Amino acid sequence: MKWKPNRHSHLTLQEQIIDWMKSRIECGEWTVGTKIPTQRELAIQFQVNRSTVQLALDELKADGFIESKVGSGIYVANNSWNVLLNGSPPNWQQHIDASIHKPNYHTIQLINEYEQFHHVIRLGTGEIAPELLPTKLLEQSLKEIVLDARSIGYSSPLGNEKLRVHLCEYLKKRGIQTSSENILIVSGALQALQLIAVGLLEEGSVIFHEQPSYLNSVHPFQSAGMRMISVSKNDHLKYQLMTFKRKRQSLFYTVPTLHNPTGYNWSLKEKEDLFHVCKELQIPIIEDDVYHELLFDTTSPAIKSFDQSGQVLYIGSVSKTLSPGLRIGWVVGPSSVIGRLADIKMQTDYGSSAISQEIVSHWLSTGLYEQHLVELRQQLQLRASFVEHILTEQFKDIATWKKPEGGFYIWLKFHKPIVNKALFLRLLKENILINPGYIYDSNDSHHIRLSYAYASFEQLKVGLNTLFKMIQHNK
Amino acid sequence: MKWKPNRHSHLTLQEQIIDWMKSRIECGEWTVGTKIPTQRELAIQFQVNRSTVQLALDELKADGFIESKVGSGIYVANNSWNVLLNGSPPNWQQHIDASIHKPNYHTIQLINEYEQFHHVIRLGTGEIAPELLPTKLLEQSLKEIVLDARSIGYSSPLGNEKLRVHLCEYLKKRGIQTSSENILIVSGALQALQLIAVGLLEEGSVIFHEQPSYLNSVHPFQSAGMRMISVSKNDHLKYQLMTFKRKRQSLFYTVPTLHNPTGYNWSLKEKEDLFHVCKELQIPIIEDDVYHELLFDTTSPAIKSFDQSGQVLYIGSVSKTLSPGLRIGWVVGPSSVIGRLADIKMQTDYGSSAISQEIVSHWLSTGLYEQHLVELRQQLQLRASFVEHILTEQFKDIATWKKPEGGFYIWLKFHKPIVNKALFLRLLKENILINPGYIYDSNDSHHIRLSYAYASFEQLKVGLNTLFKMIQHNK
Repeated sequence: MKWKPNRHSHLTLQEQIIDWMKSRIECGEWTVGTKIPTQRELAIQFQVNRSTVQLALDELKADGFIESKVGSGIYVANNSWNVLLNGSPPNWQQHIDASIHKPNYHTIQLINEYEQFHHVIRLGTGEIAPELLPTKLLEQSLKEIVLDARSIGYSSPLGNEKLRVHLCEYLKKRGIQTSSENILIVSGALQALQLIAVGLLEEGSVIFHEQPSYLNSVHPFQSAGMRMISVSKNDHLKYQLMTFKRKRQSLFYTVPTLHNPTGYNWSLKEKEDLFHVCKELQIPIIEDDVYHELLFDTTSPAIKSFDQSGQVLYIGSVSKTLSPGLRIGWVVGPSSVIGRLADIKMQTDYGSSAISQEIVSHWLSTGLYEQHLVELRQQLQLRASFVEHILTEQFKDIATWKKPEGGFYIWLKFHKPIVNKALFLRLLKENILINPGYIYDSNDSHHIRLSYAYASFEQLKVGLNTLFKMIQHNK
Repeated sequence: MKWKPNRHSHLTLQEQIIDWMKSRIECGEWTVGTKIPTQRELAIQFQVNRSTVQLALDELKADGFIESKVGSGIYVANNSWNVLLNGSPPNWQQHIDASIHKPNYHTIQLINEYEQFHHVIRLGTGEIAPELLPTKLLEQSLKEIVLDARSIGYSSPLGNEKLRVHLCEYLKKRGIQTSSENILIVSGALQALQLIAVGLLEEGSVIFHEQPSYLNSVHPFQSAGMRMISVSKNDHLKYQLMTFKRKRQSLFYTVPTLHNPTGYNWSLKEKEDLFHVCKELQIPIIEDDVYHELLFDTTSPAIKSFDQSGQVLYIGSVSKTLSPGLRIGWVVGPSSVIGRLADIKMQTDYGSSAISQEIVSHWLSTGLYEQHLVELRQQLQLRASFVEHILTEQFKDIATWKKPEGGFYIWLKFHKPIVNKALFLRLLKENILINPGYIYDSNDSHHIRLSYAYASFEQLKVGLNTLFKMIQHNK
């Protein structure tokens, strides 16, 4: 639906592209200093050859509308003609550069951007495939939902009460006893982390986490000025925590069940040890438990199920199971904490979508959700086997991996340190997206977070094959 | 759905309440230092007399579970029995007190809390009444929506493309020419302000706004460390801006059409003057335009419609018109700015609800939205007349106001400085909620933001009558 040139116009494609770009600049949508998309991206958008784009850009450069900066890209030029036409606009780039929030890593920006293109093979995506989403059943449930005028007004601070009551029942099956007043509905687990970062920690607090960590690929705590400390869950855990805790406030963040990005499960003993050490040191735990429903066989208790003293903030979500588009997750914790997080949420976005909350409530209360999970686990297991088969055929001499116990991911470790940005970009040129290990641990050049959840069987085969050949070719 | 005692139990109400509260404390949901709800709130929740609650609390105090702090309330006590039972939990209150984000004002926390109780008369609420929401039509549209598996996955950074394309068409009618790449879908206007605060401004930047201001009742900029400067839109505007701008980055925030909280409209000349002064000084403008569809008669152009140089960030929403529960708004601005805000949104909540976006897209494209607006404006006008009539009958000797030109609000000004927290609390005791002027301007003790949009005709009559009597009684 983005603009593209009209092939039946009396103007050439190149002329239309030039006119369109000039109009972007003249109407102030591309201000001075704006980085123009790459030739590659424009060619995809316009559905023309890259050479056509190149010719159009050359002409705009010659006219002084845009300029190249070596090694960086093409930008809207700050020429007097522009200024005469529009007056001098605010220097937005300066605003952006000086502002508070960290940008996403460039690799992640590229992932977010290229995930939109349907022809791209996504080997790392943390999302279930379109064909695994219960789209028709969701559509059906929309037809069954009865809206109450009060429920589509501004939300109560904690979120839809019906949904919270159903969640209490659901959480019992996970060994978690709670009440609806101890649950806050959020727009996905990431928002829970944002609220915790600004609502429960002083600046400079210490966030303990494992390496590699999902938290390195997003910045909820870093952007709020927290210090990230990696620890390993070995015998020295207590010593590690004591060393860094000192007089700072601290929190331990963990995904102990179907860890992101590794897919590993902590043993029961490891969970208990962490809980007891943190309890002794009065370090609260954030248990991110968004994958647990996707365990193939055994269940593994939540750390929260040990908790009788409000030590653990527990986070759940339907994003990995039912649909990320609903944007519904939850936090369970002591009332004072939940009240504080709710107060900030009311200042942030006045609550989550009422319709999404109604849908999740419907799916939980009718049993649809758990029926869907049974089917989803089977499908994921089939996909896991398929990918393991390819790995065994092609990758066993160059990499190692653990058999997945559930979820989406295989943490593929190459013998040689070959996973770098160059590899990422080379694959992107072949329209293959990977999640390289370095976005979860900046020192990592051995791993890829492989996801068998998103791409089709055919795409998985083609994508892995291309990856394999590229590695062979470059070694 | 909150817990309440069972009237058919063999235990007395008081015993059941005591057991329930003990269980809250024992399972760690009410941690040490947690403030217990007031007797009044508990009596409402339990549906018992306040004396029953009082007796239960007295017994819990005698047993050392809870303690009173003079003038502050009742808290879970830090006694050795608790500690023996649970181990020493993290001191959450210390975490909360030291953390970054400002809490809501106490008055606003009370408003958020009491708005949940159906028997409370809401004289100030910034929301349309349940009976004005097109609940049945929304329900109907849920039945018509066809979901696409791709659209319910994680969102593209800018939001649903179909919706953005429809918004381009819709914005044309507001005199705003833009393209879908210059629009970011957000979860309501408040989220747009949050993203701007952390994504476009260095710490210590200056935010210019008028007094009174909606921004004083929420804290998106204050919590990010910005400095708020009130200015008046008179002849000295330029001088005022120059004085404070100096070397700091700055932004001008305004609701020029149906201003919140006053309901006033800026004249065309005032809008033009602001635009030109800000342009000359290179101060970006945030135009919050969430009420414009609710103008009764004349339309008034958006400041954004003058903008050819990317000077103005324009914010719109369906929260004031279609349903706040959808949590859908939008920001329009230069590509570099929109890209930056989208990048932060992806780090904050991975996009807004896909279902909500589908619904808004459906309502815009089918014309349902504009049909609904016609009806809504008529209903609001009827309500405005009704309230004006009561004001003229009862309040004309003690207060002044302007005839509303649209939207929700009458900015009622009392001759005497009687609007203070005591009045707010006295009214709350009578189950009447007002939005006192001091939440929009801390020095204001003359105004109430009266809303004719939410309460029923009967409630408006009873509520205003009680307000009038209380003022007469206390003068």
